[in-house]
Amino acid sequence: MNETSRNIPDQRYGERLTACRQTMVEREFAALFIGVGPDLRYLTGFVGEATERLTFLVIPREGPVSFVVPRLEVEKASTAPLVRAGHAEVTPFEETDDAPALVADLLAHRQLSTGRAAWEPIGLSDRLWAMHVLQMQAALPGRKFERASVVMRDLRQVKDADEARLLALAAAAADRTVDGIAAGPLVGRTEADVSREIRRRLIDEGHDLADFAIVGSGPNGASPHHDATERTIAAGESIVLDLGGTLAGYASDTTRTIWVAGEDSIAPQPEFGLVYALVRDAQARATSAVAPGVPAEQIDAVARATITSGGYGEFFTHRVGHGIGLEVHEDPYMVAGNTAPLAPGMAFSVEPGVYLPGRWGVRLENIVMCAPDGATVLNRSSLDLRVVRG
Amino acid sequence: MNETSRNIPDQRYGERLTACRQTMVEREFAALFIGVGPDLRYLTGFVGEATERLTFLVIPREGPVSFVVPRLEVEKASTAPLVRAGHAEVTPFEETDDAPALVADLLAHRQLSTGRAAWEPIGLSDRLWAMHVLQMQAALPGRKFERASVVMRDLRQVKDADEARLLALAAAAADRTVDGIAAGPLVGRTEADVSREIRRRLIDEGHDLADFAIVGSGPNGASPHHDATERTIAAGESIVLDLGGTLAGYASDTTRTIWVAGEDSIAPQPEFGLVYALVRDAQARATSAVAPGVPAEQIDAVARATITSGGYGEFFTHRVGHGIGLEVHEDPYMVAGNTAPLAPGMAFSVEPGVYLPGRWGVRLENIVMCAPDGATVLNRSSLDLRVVRG
Repeated sequence: MNETSRNIPDQRYGERLTACRQTMVEREFAALFIGVGPDLRYLTGFVGEATERLTFLVIPREGPVSFVVPRLEVEKASTAPLVRAGHAEVTPFEETDDAPALVADLLAHRQLSTGRAAWEPIGLSDRLWAMHVLQMQAALPGRKFERASVVMRDLRQVKDADEARLLALAAAAADRTVDGIAAGPLVGRTEADVSREIRRRLIDEGHDLADFAIVGSGPNGASPHHDATERTIAAGESIVLDLGGTLAGYASDTTRTIWVAGEDSIAPQPEFGLVYALVRDAQARATSAVAPGVPAEQIDAVARATITSGGYGEFFTHRVGHGIGLEVHEDPYMVAGNTAPLAPGMAFSVEPGVYLPGRWGVRLENIVMCAPDGATVLNRSSLDLRVVRG
Repeated sequence: MNETSRNIPDQRYGERLTACRQTMVEREFAALFIGVGPDLRYLTGFVGEATERLTFLVIPREGPVSFVVPRLEVEKASTAPLVRAGHAEVTPFEETDDAPALVADLLAHRQLSTGRAAWEPIGLSDRLWAMHVLQMQAALPGRKFERASVVMRDLRQVKDADEARLLALAAAAADRTVDGIAAGPLVGRTEADVSREIRRRLIDEGHDLADFAIVGSGPNGASPHHDATERTIAAGESIVLDLGGTLAGYASDTTRTIWVAGEDSIAPQPEFGLVYALVRDAQARATSAVAPGVPAEQIDAVARATITSGGYGEFFTHRVGHGIGLEVHEDPYMVAGNTAPLAPGMAFSVEPGVYLPGRWGVRLENIVMCAPDGATVLNRSSLDLRVVRG
């Protein structure tokens, strides 16, 4: 497996299923219903979008695993690595079948509707649609349901070598996108136009999907989740660029704040320079705090203390980071209250920001991985303030 | 409002909210919790992606409507047309707040946790993530939850003039994409390469997002939901092209099956020609059956009877169509068992198909709208078998 391979070896899926079932035993789950989404991709390699047609990997704690799919997905489901390797059997239903009843029957056949197993919860994948949650609750009255992430979190938040490689490839593609945009020109263009260029570059640099491209120019940078608008970018203002896509399923997510000087080389006002340096310092200190055993909330606290001591604490309005992998936001979250310890293989963002309403914002974001001796930073594009002339 | 405007007038959102609450009274819902997704876009104009951060439009049957959002979405939420027009107030929560508890409190303040209202269900938007469903069920123990689509379906499935215009614009953009691909060349290219070209053309022709681009060449056409692969397209085989995107939120979805003749002008085998004619006949007959008052299942039955009488009934393995609007699949579904009558303004696909495993498939799909006097067909690209030379 070379460093640019986009492949996850087939046997990995069987290993993940085994680990999943071990965790189910520890946490006392009778079964998991995993709908189309990141949990399903993690366990089976199946790539797809959730739809109104119920599609479940049904994992009882023991015995055969069933991949319940609508008839027209059978050929596709049969090529999923977990199925190909013989670890799950495809169970199709017809358009006019009652799929929730079929899943309930399956549970009864697996002896999970009687005795002790009947009292243990069934885990539902976090992103399963409410329509399917409510259908299954109606089909299995009295049954207790919990979030499958109680089981899946521990598996997914520690990345294996293949996942680490894909996250690094995605980060590098995002870095090249940032560099391309920061090369300009930007003056006179709309945010929406720059956002389109970002999406195009994300794909050209190797992502399969361009998922988001925030372009917050001038005062729009003060809204952390600003959507690109028809506002025209002018010389003498900053832009928050927050962009990402997915590569072989794995997400990139990086933010740089740049300065548009224009041909007259307009310099930033002093306060902007101070805040930029403060956010950069907070980002660096938080990254330095990453190590195995450190509580996740500590990473947030380190960044927050830095920004608060600089006098801008009230303008740092969000947590400092989120886990990343098959989802752009996933466990572990770097937020006050999350005392769970970091462990080698965890990947997450470190992205402090300061937002001054009506004026501008500064955010700097890297993806880092917890390594045995500290943090490995996946994003390599410069954290120096980029000054764009054109 | 001209025919190419992508705008939905602001006042429409207030009208939709009023209609929604009238339906809530009829169906005896105490409140709706509408998460980020098509229902939220329909009611507020808010465009976004669902995330792990709870984001709810809380609609009690009476009294103030609250848009509960994480702090960092406040500026964006405030610009949603429904909020701008004063019909909903933004209620922010902090990263460390217990958002489900906050929503539960809100319900209590609206007198919806006591008396008769406490026994009436709360509607959850169909696509709300299971994690939020389970959180709200835990925060409101004993409360009954139902699908919000019980209320939303009747509103959303009948399109107004603005929605009809956007669906027509999206359909026309999809038609131009089909025409561009059918102009060739195709021989010697991979399915994945053609799929990328489709996605690029969908955007170039006016979609905001390119959502899917099925390229099922030769035997791959027999899998209705085939993903484009590295298979190379050869002369002397058919391709099922099923593609769509969204334009101002509204979806396109069209399918054409084309014949790749190559430079030597290889003709299709006779059975392919017969099946193509049969599917085309079924598509035409089903379209002709569209009229107000006709049960939705009748459209399916007409197409199925045609294909069955031609001897290929067992190979038509899916329903004949689905509603389309802010979702590519939504109510009403053209499927056996759906006896609900069609009404003017309903938009849906008519897409019979025949799939011969290991050989090839044929599917033809148009989006149609039910009009007072029959069907208005939105897709205009030719249903004749396209023969591609190169």
